[in-house]
Amino acid sequence: MSVLFFHTMKYKQSDPENPNNDRFILSKRLSFIDMAIGWFGQGLGAACGMAYTGKYFDRASYRIYCLLGDGESSEGSVWEALAFAACYGLDNLVLIFDVNRLGHGGTLPVEHCIEVYQKRCEAFGWNTYVVDGRDVEALCQVFWKAAHVKGKPTAVVAKTFKGRGMPNVEDAESWYGKPMPKERADAIIKLIESQIQTNRSLIPDPPLEDSRKIIIGDIKMASTPVYKIGDMMSTRKACGLALAKLGRENERVILLDGDTKNSSFSEIFKKEHPERFIECFIAEQNMVNVALGCAIRNRTIPFANTFAAFWTRAYDQIRKGAMCQINLNLIGSPCGVVTGEDSPSQMALEDLAMFRAIPNCTIFYPSDAVSTEHAVYLAANTKGLCFIRASRPETAVIYRPEEIFSIGQAKVVHQSVNDRVVIIGAGVCLHEALLAAAELAKEDIHVRVIDLFTIKPLDSSTILINAKATGGRIITVEDHYPEGGIGEAVCAAVAMENDILVQQLTVSGMPRSGRTDELLDMFGISARHIIMAVKCILTY
Amino acid sequence: MSVLFFHTMKYKQSDPENPNNDRFILSKRLSFIDMAIGWFGQGLGAACGMAYTGKYFDRASYRIYCLLGDGESSEGSVWEALAFAACYGLDNLVLIFDVNRLGHGGTLPVEHCIEVYQKRCEAFGWNTYVVDGRDVEALCQVFWKAAHVKGKPTAVVAKTFKGRGMPNVEDAESWYGKPMPKERADAIIKLIESQIQTNRSLIPDPPLEDSRKIIIGDIKMASTPVYKIGDMMSTRKACGLALAKLGRENERVILLDGDTKNSSFSEIFKKEHPERFIECFIAEQNMVNVALGCAIRNRTIPFANTFAAFWTRAYDQIRKGAMCQINLNLIGSPCGVVTGEDSPSQMALEDLAMFRAIPNCTIFYPSDAVSTEHAVYLAANTKGLCFIRASRPETAVIYRPEEIFSIGQAKVVHQSVNDRVVIIGAGVCLHEALLAAAELAKEDIHVRVIDLFTIKPLDSSTILINAKATGGRIITVEDHYPEGGIGEAVCAAVAMENDILVQQLTVSGMPRSGRTDELLDMFGISARHIIMAVKCILTY
Repeated sequence: MSVLFFHTMKYKQSDPENPNNDRFILSKRLSFIDMAIGWFGQGLGAACGMAYTGKYFDRASYRIYCLLGDGESSEGSVWEALAFAACYGLDNLVLIFDVNRLGHGGTLPVEHCIEVYQKRCEAFGWNTYVVDGRDVEALCQVFWKAAHVKGKPTAVVAKTFKGRGMPNVEDAESWYGKPMPKERADAIIKLIESQIQTNRSLIPDPPLEDSRKIIIGDIKMASTPVYKIGDMMSTRKACGLALAKLGRENERVILLDGDTKNSSFSEIFKKEHPERFIECFIAEQNMVNVALGCAIRNRTIPFANTFAAFWTRAYDQIRKGAMCQINLNLIGSPCGVVTGEDSPSQMALEDLAMFRAIPNCTIFYPSDAVSTEHAVYLAANTKGLCFIRASRPETAVIYRPEEIFSIGQAKVVHQSVNDRVVIIGAGVCLHEALLAAAELAKEDIHVRVIDLFTIKPLDSSTILINAKATGGRIITVEDHYPEGGIGEAVCAAVAMENDILVQQLTVSGMPRSGRTDELLDMFGISARHIIMAVKCILTY
Repeated sequence: MSVLFFHTMKYKQSDPENPNNDRFILSKRLSFIDMAIGWFGQGLGAACGMAYTGKYFDRASYRIYCLLGDGESSEGSVWEALAFAACYGLDNLVLIFDVNRLGHGGTLPVEHCIEVYQKRCEAFGWNTYVVDGRDVEALCQVFWKAAHVKGKPTAVVAKTFKGRGMPNVEDAESWYGKPMPKERADAIIKLIESQIQTNRSLIPDPPLEDSRKIIIGDIKMASTPVYKIGDMMSTRKACGLALAKLGRENERVILLDGDTKNSSFSEIFKKEHPERFIECFIAEQNMVNVALGCAIRNRTIPFANTFAAFWTRAYDQIRKGAMCQINLNLIGSPCGVVTGEDSPSQMALEDLAMFRAIPNCTIFYPSDAVSTEHAVYLAANTKGLCFIRASRPETAVIYRPEEIFSIGQAKVVHQSVNDRVVIIGAGVCLHEALLAAAELAKEDIHVRVIDLFTIKPLDSSTILINAKATGGRIITVEDHYPEGGIGEAVCAAVAMENDILVQQLTVSGMPRSGRTDELLDMFGISARHIIMAVKCILTY
């Protein structure tokens, strides 16, 4: 780190966030300049995102240095990142592989056999050097060499010892995460200070200023959505179209996909903006890390798209990204049992629970093409983590093109003065609710229907006002498991009110593959079930 | 697959689940004999668990064959599994790496350069062969060779073509997941049938019958817990001790840990049963997959232990394990803001939301050492997925050793006839609730306290009865975010009742590092906050 900070790296000491600075990522510890991560192998993926941004979007000369521990390299996400960096020839990226042989609870399997790590990095397509991690001259040399390698990222595999030079601490197993007694620490600091041979102040070289200023905020929708009420379109396709449109309005909008582009409709964006599409292959953890890296220092507006179910693969990376308050937009497309003919493992039914339990995450669950387009624009302009849940079936457009949408504002989409129940839904189930309302009206039973639009923040006030206006009877309906979804969110929102009942309709049990209309009915969230629930709650 | 099924593998065709059979895992497709997985690189980790079980627990001669796709090898979990298998010398494991160069949405980066995959497998410590995936003789030969390699797993890197031999389909990009028109399919089937040169019926060799019958059900607690009321102990330590005791009572109890054994107290088990402890290093996805593999065909009773926060890393693997109804016990230790001096990223505050949203998952959240021991025994005897949430602070034992615990049965731990509020909690917050109850009693405000014990299934009936007995006033308190935890579970349980109010006390906002008592208070879940909430709800 001394060699990097005082010899190799170019940056303005007085302005650590300057876009022209070289970047340093301390993956193996709890924090570093741009991102607080922990010991989990997340740093290299973020470094890949920064390097990709530097090489392909900024086309600037800043370089990325990432220090990775041997312990965290047990995490598969590290190898996803290694494959990614080689695939895209990120020659502005240098990985320092710190091989100190010790983990949290003892020695690691590979111990100090650094040639094993070297072979692995080489096999993953990296230019690789082996050094003694304390040999200043050797480090200067390999970092210089790395800067002249074209088309390949460089890994510097460094043999190191924990607590090097500290008597009875060096290379010992028992010091992980344990504080050293003060007296002993004082003695060691003294010992180290006695070895300092110069008091010359080292100042880093300034960076080349070729990373231009960019504007990523406040993207306006230049024209209203092109859909007419009644048009049929899936929200997943509307998402793909909205992303392509958004990409026209800001050149820093980028899209990542994990080998699902022909299902998620990311291919629409790719076709129109091929230079801003990043294929991440089947590696969701790395996809999130790369997206976070691209977002850091506000260099891009990243969206990442895959099946909603597959985000379960990257829950840790997502929650840590949110913890670092990085702007990231994820799309889960498709979701729920209406995924239909695919396998149950590909039907997200826990994603709302998962994303709701992330502080400050904004969750959009649009119900038609118009609201989907607005969700995409709102997400692009919203700080922190956003999640857009999109579905596979074609559903009718229900909003006029000039309808205005806001985060945390639900829409009453069907009402009369005689309503006796309020049905709350989103996505495909909103259409089932509207169908149920129409059927019930024939029997002179009138119900109100609310489209939540955002699941988090939840529009509690609209819910409460309409629940009270309809005799305190709420039915929620969602293509999600009972736990942590719309139903529980609504229950919690009215929990301090007397005289409000909430009946939850949710997907019960493990799903199976089938036709979407059959599945909606089989799992208890179709119009038929809503009608039964309305009649039932009226008997209370 | 033909070579494996009709030449290499030894099994009883009439008894596919026979423990002596060789195992086959089709990782790249949606299902295989023991586990339904999907295209996500989960199969090799499960195969590692089966191979580990065969080699070290069964010490039997059955072998494991796993077919892996090149597309899914982008998943880092595949490389976690490769490292694991080499580390433990799983020479009874053969991986067939099917390199067909095509992913879901197009070609893969490595395409048909099979030597890249070979180098990667070698660098990860595997014995490796390269073959033409259609060369029957070569396949027979390498499988035979693999059976004679000692101390290393074998990877067979096979170059293949999708749709081989089908005119205009072979090696073409556009056929993924798409049905072929019937006429064309018929013609192709005819073509293939015309190439069959023999009608000899091939019968596999029978396996060696050296995998003995084992008993893993119905483990009794031979002696009551040794704790006395008032003893101070953390539930995470009680967990470690209970696992060691359980291990004494059934020799098929095994424990996996991800380099946290000196924090999770897995080291207690390791010390007593070293041959049944599996160190999985920092690779949670693979740890879950290995545990699932160990559990398959009921060969072991696996427990896996790490920080509750780190299970977010393996959410996909966990939910798919549950989908396959495999018996797996996970321990999250420690959890919540009371993790204290560690970094916020290591404080699980979303784990209840995550596990609750898995169908049929049983969630234990014990509050003292006695109930923790019971939780461990109940988990061992319960089918499907179990999760035990354990905490770091030392808390008092509140149950007598002979107390009986059941799944889905809460305990009223503090009550009087004058109670006006019921406080519902678990874990550390239960102790805060008891403290609050004692303080409030001094002011002649009497409250009831319920220990949930299991969060899922939730004891709705105890909650309802006691809520009604205390004027319909519930306060929930939990070391968890507001979404998807105890509070929302309780809100949902009483949602169809009028006249019950629920006030949720939960961790608000991003946590930070600190002293546990300070954090409990700072994040609004201490006795002081409970007292305020009680006084407030009484004014409604």
